[in-house]
Parts: sequence; structure tokens; C-alpha cells
Amino acid sequence: MIFKNRKIILRISQYKSTIIYYKQIGFTKIYSDFLGEKTGVTASQVRKDFSLFGIKGNKRGGYFIDDLLTALNKILGKEDTQKVIIAGAGNIGSALAGYKKFHSESIKIVACFDIDPVKTSKKGVVPVFPYSEMADFIRDNAIEVGIVAVPEVFAQDVVNNMVKAGIRGILNFAPVNIKEPSEDCYINNVNLEIELENIIYFVKKKE
Amino acid sequence: MIFKNRKIILRISQYKSTIIYYKQIGFTKIYSDFLGEKTGVTASQVRKDFSLFGIKGNKRGGYFIDDLLTALNKILGKEDTQKVIIAGAGNIGSALAGYKKFHSESIKIVACFDIDPVKTSKKGVVPVFPYSEMADFIRDNAIEVGIVAVPEVFAQDVVNNMVKAGIRGILNFAPVNIKEPSEDCYINNVNLEIELENIIYFVKKKE
Repeated sequence: MIFKNRKIILRISQYKSTIIYYKQIGFTKIYSDFLGEKTGVTASQVRKDFSLFGIKGNKRGGYFIDDLLTALNKILGKEDTQKVIIAGAGNIGSALAGYKKFHSESIKIVACFDIDPVKTSKKGVVPVFPYSEMADFIRDNAIEVGIVAVPEVFAQDVVNNMVKAGIRGILNFAPVNIKEPSEDCYINNVNLEIELENIIYFVKKKE
Repeated sequence: MIFKNRKIILRISQYKSTIIYYKQIGFTKIYSDFLGEKTGVTASQVRKDFSLFGIKGNKRGGYFIDDLLTALNKILGKEDTQKVIIAGAGNIGSALAGYKKFHSESIKIVACFDIDPVKTSKKGVVPVFPYSEMADFIRDNAIEVGIVAVPEVFAQDVVNNMVKAGIRGILNFAPVNIKEPSEDCYINNVNLEIELENIIYFVKKKE
């Protein structure tokens, strides 16, 4: 079953990371009202989202955390490890390559690519290869997910090359809205500058 | 006039960065249909948003880019430089400190804070001070905007300390949903893991 609604899937991800946190600090069960409060939605929204995917709890007893995690991981397609590459090994690209949350059981950043020879010679957690090798690497390793962290002028080209080589999901950090080159491809634009400007707007306007 | 609707302000920011891009490559005028296409909204939405703030164009002639930029910057409160601090000088914090888009005419990252003495002795674009000095720094420099890039277990504490010292707008990168400690404070949560999981979901489900 494919849910086209991005918001449901974002909530499922949020439930999951909240549950993992409470599992780590010793919880074995969790209630919909508590989970709702921690993720900023109502308890009935939590129950509705879960029942959409056939996850059942009981009103009194809540949900068992381990069962819930298994179910949510199944929804998110996280039983297998997803190999991910990054285009661009500048500040943001390198930080993402070293980001612990991107090296989990289900996600693994396997390579970065950059046009700058200085960056390809640096040693880090993740190898940095010349950008010219990216397309072959994607094909040879059947990579399906890519992160774009290149300057905005190169972003659309990089996306086009990724998709041509077989990538079908892209997280874009270049500060420009990238168009999906084909219907088979899904792009999520994260514009950090806009997020920060948004904060500044609200601070200023309250003065 | 304060617009409570976050979406309008996000669109205004997006229009602005799109316009800056086209100004850089030589455009002097821009049309609502073109701007709409590049930002993923309809032309009438663009005109509606602009007219909300009293920005007028003409149907045939479009908008003059320089006038538009002045007007949008005024809306976004970007006539002054906004000083911003970062809590956490790990991978993500350091990358944000060095992020070029965060050192513009209107935004300046002035300091990072970390509990790790190794990080406070490193030299970079932005100085890294001990976390214990953060509250005084915020007060002494009248800082109003902060970025949180600390591990999730510390995030709520850091936010509380920031707000107590005078910060009123926070961009949070810790992978946990932070609650606004007071009504005067605005928090924007950016959860990179959730953004990536979202992509993986869509890629997996299409198989």
C-alpha cells in the first residue's frame, strides 16, 4: 500500500524517533496521549494513523514499544539497510556524511562525490570520490537514494545525473527548489536559509 | 502587521531566494507566472501573496527585481543584520557555522558554544566558547536567534537556557521535537533523519 500523503509518513517517522528515545530510557509501553503530546498531535490522530496501517493497541494498556517499532519500521521500509550517497563534500555534505543518525541499522552513507581534488583526498568516515565517478558508482551499487549538497548553480544538473543513473529519491540541501526530473523520482527540498529567515521574521515582528 | 501563517512567510522567503538567483544571472524584471513556476505555486498565488503586503506589479510588465527585493527584505525584517549563535559545535553545528548562506548581509553567526574543551580550542570561521558562557553572551550581545545542534538528550535544556537568557527564535536540529518554553518564543524543528526516512519510504514503496 502506498500512502501518497507525505504528512502521514512524516508523522510515522516522528512517532518512531520519539518511541526509540523512550525505549532507550527504559520504557516498554507507550500511550497514544503521551506519544501525541511528544510529537505535537492529538491522541486520536496517533490512533487514527496507527489504525490506518493496521496497528492496534488497547485503550487502557497502550502499545508495546517493541511491537510498535517493528510495525513502524515495516511501514517505513526499514528492514533492509538503505545505501545513500552524497554529492558535494563541502561544509554541509561532510557534516551529513559524519552525522550519526545517518549511520544506523537502516541507513548507511556509503560515498561522497566532489569535483574538488582537495576534498577527494581528505580522509573521513565516508570516502570522497571524484564527481565524474558518481554515475558509475550509482549503477554498480544499485544506489537509489542521494543527498545533494552542492552550490545552487550545480544542483539541477547533479539531480538530473543522479536520476539518469538510477536514483529515485533525493534530499536536496542546495538552496534552490529542484524539480523532479521524472515521475518515478521523489525530491525533498530542505532550504536551511529559508528556515532561519522564517525564525528571524517572527522574532522581528514581535518587537 | 504580523502574519501568523508560517506558510506565507516561507513562500516570501522562497520568492526572495529565487529572485536573488535570477538577479545574479542578469534578470531585471520577473513575472508572477515565471516566479510561481520556479517556486512551485500558481501565478495567482504569487500575486495574492504580494498584494497582501501591498506589493503591486502590472499584468503586462511584471515586477522590477530591485523593487521587489527591497519590499521582500522589508517584510522579512532583513534591513538589519541579525546576530545568531549556535549551541553545539559537532558535525552539524560546525557545518552551519561555516555555511555561506548564514553569513550574508542580514544574518551573521557570531559564536558557537560547546561543553567539549577540544571543540572550544579549535579555530574556525566562528569562535567556539565554553557552553557555560552562553547565557552571559546572549545577554551581553542582545542575541535573539539561536540554532540548536546538540544531541537530543540535551536539547530541551539548551532551549530552556537560551530562552531564559533572552533568545526568542530557535532553529532546532536535535532530532527531537522541542516544545516552546514560552509564548514569546518561536521554534522551528528540522529533523534531518525524518526527512531522509521520508525519501526512503517513497523509494521503497515504488518498488
